[in-house]
Amino acid sequence: MFHDPPRFPRGFRTASRHCGLKPSGKDLAIFVSDVDAAAAAVFTRNHFPGAPVLLGRETIRGGKLRAIVVNSKVSNVANGAAGLTNARRMATAAAEALGISPDRVLVSSTGVIGVPLPIEKIEQGLRGIAAELVDDPLVGAEGIMTTDSHPKALSMGVDDATITWVAKGSGMIEPNMATMLSYIMTDADIGARELDGLLREAVDVSFNMLSVDSDTSTSDTCVMLANGRAGPVDRDAFRKTLRTGCLRMTEMLARDGEGATKLLRATVRGAKTPAEARRIAKSLVNSPLVKTMVHGADPNVGRLLMAVGKCFECTIHPDATDAWINGQKVVHAGERTTFDEAAVRAGLATDTTDILVALGVGDAEATAFGCDLSAGYISENAAYYST
Amino acid sequence: MFHDPPRFPRGFRTASRHCGLKPSGKDLAIFVSDVDAAAAAVFTRNHFPGAPVLLGRETIRGGKLRAIVVNSKVSNVANGAAGLTNARRMATAAAEALGISPDRVLVSSTGVIGVPLPIEKIEQGLRGIAAELVDDPLVGAEGIMTTDSHPKALSMGVDDATITWVAKGSGMIEPNMATMLSYIMTDADIGARELDGLLREAVDVSFNMLSVDSDTSTSDTCVMLANGRAGPVDRDAFRKTLRTGCLRMTEMLARDGEGATKLLRATVRGAKTPAEARRIAKSLVNSPLVKTMVHGADPNVGRLLMAVGKCFECTIHPDATDAWINGQKVVHAGERTTFDEAAVRAGLATDTTDILVALGVGDAEATAFGCDLSAGYISENAAYYST
Repeated sequence: MFHDPPRFPRGFRTASRHCGLKPSGKDLAIFVSDVDAAAAAVFTRNHFPGAPVLLGRETIRGGKLRAIVVNSKVSNVANGAAGLTNARRMATAAAEALGISPDRVLVSSTGVIGVPLPIEKIEQGLRGIAAELVDDPLVGAEGIMTTDSHPKALSMGVDDATITWVAKGSGMIEPNMATMLSYIMTDADIGARELDGLLREAVDVSFNMLSVDSDTSTSDTCVMLANGRAGPVDRDAFRKTLRTGCLRMTEMLARDGEGATKLLRATVRGAKTPAEARRIAKSLVNSPLVKTMVHGADPNVGRLLMAVGKCFECTIHPDATDAWINGQKVVHAGERTTFDEAAVRAGLATDTTDILVALGVGDAEATAFGCDLSAGYISENAAYYST
Repeated sequence: MFHDPPRFPRGFRTASRHCGLKPSGKDLAIFVSDVDAAAAAVFTRNHFPGAPVLLGRETIRGGKLRAIVVNSKVSNVANGAAGLTNARRMATAAAEALGISPDRVLVSSTGVIGVPLPIEKIEQGLRGIAAELVDDPLVGAEGIMTTDSHPKALSMGVDDATITWVAKGSGMIEPNMATMLSYIMTDADIGARELDGLLREAVDVSFNMLSVDSDTSTSDTCVMLANGRAGPVDRDAFRKTLRTGCLRMTEMLARDGEGATKLLRATVRGAKTPAEARRIAKSLVNSPLVKTMVHGADPNVGRLLMAVGKCFECTIHPDATDAWINGQKVVHAGERTTFDEAAVRAGLATDTTDILVALGVGDAEATAFGCDLSAGYISENAAYYST
């Protein structure tokens, strides 16, 4: 179902380089389609969007892209008018290197907020990059990493077409309308308007249900390009495959959250409304006390009720509430069961914890994706600016 | 202004003991007025309140209390009907030990959620406790500690009367309507109804603006007793003193949050509404990335904008937004200033960090109280159930 290793759809290539923003390691990447691709995007809802997001909202209006250019280490946020000028210079430099128009280039920057973008290094780094384009998505994924522990790419087939995801996550991750940086490329033939609907539908149940640390980045960007090289595809199969891959990438991002050692999935069933199901599922994966419980594999199951119960505005009937950890029932009718403690402990010690809460007040369901909270999160973030 | 050491109002005494819930250390306390006191209380809004909270809501309707009995280590939450029976037995045992009526006794339990309350140990521990009553509030404060690093009590004079606060905090602390456990005693002569209004007003700007970890306990309880022994007091002076002491106790609780090494105060000015000012101030003290920045004394000031900007539903104009850290202006009109980095770093390295954000869109203001996030929080909570 998933290609291993991941590959590109027809007509997509990437390159990445070290241009000197990081002390060492790749910090610059481009993703290119050899023909104009229909394009759709969703961006952060943070009130202080970075300059690339402001520019990207403008660029995406055309509904067509040829390339995405991304730097890591510096996010180009809170830099005022100079930030916007630099984002435009970055688009122009990429366009010149590829021999295309700057209004077909989407720009992203990720890294420290509030530091000027070293645009000359990026411009220098883009010169001649077209000669290095390859068809391995992991090469581009390497160039967009910040604190990610590994490059992230996936691909799946649908009819004769391919869908490829390249993303980065790690910290400042509770996306709203998009995730930190996520690029989806396909050779299916789909128009920009339809692509936008499909993208929003898939993002809604995947990246928008992800939280590493409840902090919403100012740079969140999820872009999808469809260059049509594989012709039309079955829409239902495409929709389903898009959703499956977005969910898988969401889990990859959650599992590799800053300091994370485990994936934490929380499903809420029987909620009064979909919004309440989402709210409560998010509360579970965002609770520091649930996250540390999972980290320590310590079955302090009352914390699940605490995290559900602090959603004051939701309809919750304690007597109707049941909960499971990795299939072991730990709460019945709002009361702790006499569960097999060793079994629950063993489940919590694996690399994935599934929490299920059944509220018994309606029919709505949602799943949220997160990770445990470890001392690694603290050490990565206590000196992120300086290191 | 504050008495040092703290003392009790006329007619209040306390005792605390080790009754065997903890391996060692005090785990049981009583606070007693020698005459009926007018009483008011606020409790957690969590949907899964502990049995003592359910019983307390009933007890407080009478508007009169003689005593508060508290155990630590086990919180008596998620224990169903047996939990409520045990909370009533605890009130009865305290009443018998003191020769008073059980409906004048407020019960609290704090500690692990979802473990049966060892009621026999508590009943045994309360026998003969009246003989040990003393007039030092710190003695009672010792009996209610969980992961607190020190007992917490304060007292202040107002006219001829005294107000005394005894509290515990540490983790699972984002109270709503009250804080974990906070007991306020005074010998001023004030009726229950007026006391209720005064208490809610003070709690609203103090304990309700506190967050150690964004998790709302199922046991939050704040009770105030006024036994009238000092006669009437000037209401304005009393209101002001009550507020001052509640704010000071809130800061003590924040500073001693689990793993905390620093107090973090965030003030938001110029917000459109008081609710938005509170929402944004809370977002600042709850942001893991702001908390780790403060912990590491690393001036990653863009994170302030991120934490403000993720309040999607609030009115925020980036161009009108300024921010300061310990008096150093770090953001002007939504853009990072060229601040003195060494000075900001030095300020962040002290034991208190004050963040001020001016939104420039209205007149509302609020202050929230929190702490930094350290590896100590993880280690205290990864195995809290088992240790």
